[in-house]
Amino acid sequence: MLKVIAEDFIHLDAVETVLPLYRELVEHTRQEPACIAYDLFVDQKDPGHFIFVEEWPHRAALDAHCRTPHFSRLVPLINRHQRQEGTVILMDAFPA
Amino acid sequence: MLKVIAEDFIHLDAVETVLPLYRELVEHTRQEPACIAYDLFVDQKDPGHFIFVEEWPHRAALDAHCRTPHFSRLVPLINRHQRQEGTVILMDAFPA
Repeated sequence: MLKVIAEDFIHLDAVETVLPLYRELVEHTRQEPACIAYDLFVDQKDPGHFIFVEEWPHRAALDAHCRTPHFSRLVPLINRHQRQEGTVILMDAFPA
Repeated sequence: MLKVIAEDFIHLDAVETVLPLYRELVEHTRQEPACIAYDLFVDQKDPGHFIFVEEWPHRAALDAHCRTPHFSRLVPLINRHQRQEGTVILMDAFPA
């Protein structure tokens, strides 16, 4: 199991522009057979700070996601409106 | 619904010390009646970077969590081993 947190920082005046792009990205990604979870959230203190919480069975599934037509098309359109570089954390479950 | 990401940064030589404290915190917190999800992860690139992904019904439930005996006892014990200040993001679900 691979858990991912991916954070984007969008210019506040572009939030309305990116909302439909994020919506489309979420819809398509959830249809990927290997996608376990792909949930998007917004920072309560910053409407331009978008946070994905993702779950994939393994790294290969995440890498395949990043090569899909919807990812390749939509992410560059979103990134045009970044105000700073996004971040990604790949995580393992805590050893219970 | 309130989603939370809380990140801790622990000195690498203290990771073994904090693991049982985190384990106890997770166990107790999951027993709080209002807790929807309280999952802990570790950054694949940094074994001292711990990430909670939490879900609460509302802010009052999160605030109550932070006043529980287990939180009040365990979090200061963990924080003794911080190498930098932790971060917390309170998030709303993306408007689908």
